[in-house]
Amino acid sequence: MSNIQFQPRRTIEQVEEGTDLAPKFDERGLIVAVTTDAASGELLMQGYMNEEALRLTIETGEAHYYSRSRQTLWHKGATSGLVQRVVQLMIDDDQDCIWLRVDVAGGASCHVGYRSCFYREIPAGAALAERGTDASVDLQFTDTEKVFDPQEVYGDAPNPTIL
Amino acid sequence: MSNIQFQPRRTIEQVEEGTDLAPKFDERGLIVAVTTDAASGELLMQGYMNEEALRLTIETGEAHYYSRSRQTLWHKGATSGLVQRVVQLMIDDDQDCIWLRVDVAGGASCHVGYRSCFYREIPAGAALAERGTDASVDLQFTDTEKVFDPQEVYGDAPNPTIL
Repeated sequence: MSNIQFQPRRTIEQVEEGTDLAPKFDERGLIVAVTTDAASGELLMQGYMNEEALRLTIETGEAHYYSRSRQTLWHKGATSGLVQRVVQLMIDDDQDCIWLRVDVAGGASCHVGYRSCFYREIPAGAALAERGTDASVDLQFTDTEKVFDPQEVYGDAPNPTIL
Repeated sequence: MSNIQFQPRRTIEQVEEGTDLAPKFDERGLIVAVTTDAASGELLMQGYMNEEALRLTIETGEAHYYSRSRQTLWHKGATSGLVQRVVQLMIDDDQDCIWLRVDVAGGASCHVGYRSCFYREIPAGAALAERGTDASVDLQFTDTEKVFDPQEVYGDAPNPTIL
């Protein structure tokens, strides 16, 4: 059904310095996907794609992932309406990571209700030292206002977080 | 040796909505790390940390990773001098991904010699459609100028890319 062809990985030069799209899927058939807000540069989420998700993302220009918790293809926003439109799609040197720069309808990407999945900071280096030697590394919220109410959007759908 | 304590993962509420640092390391003992340029928002690299790498990153404020190809702790920049100073360290909702916002000494993060590991674009959506129906998904270089010469910096060290 799809025209998108992936090339076999033959040489390091081909993979690193060439124009062949030769992504490396791991032993689970997945590749890491990193998604940032195209305008602000903020990291919104990190997920995974299988071959089909990558093909569909390329073809449609909308972010598709593979949900490990639900073990299924996942068109981001299908439930919540918060579709991610791909502004630019990039691949890294050894082609084992995809970078999506996206516009998000509704401005939120996180199932907890925040704009980004990254709403808490770990104090590190100087910030940790300022707390004193006996300090713990308690997380600090950098974003305290939810963009939407998860209960309203997802209802009783199971939470994807796995302990 | 280290004071940094990770908390056990008890409940979804604790992990998602609390201040406990309770990172989830996968079956290999690794957590995904995503590193962006603190100033530009550009994605520089995606790597992995083990417990020790995360502790050292928190303590020192300099990025440490776990190298899967070399199977060892990796203080980024130890060979190349291109140390990453952590400006902000974030963790995601289910605590299985670390986001490092960094300043890079020397301005480069990629072993191939580019500023970022992401120097090639995959045409997607409208960009792909513009190429016509029979078009291939050949990668396009978005960054053509190397910041350093890998041969000069790394010499005969083995290339970390695995086919």
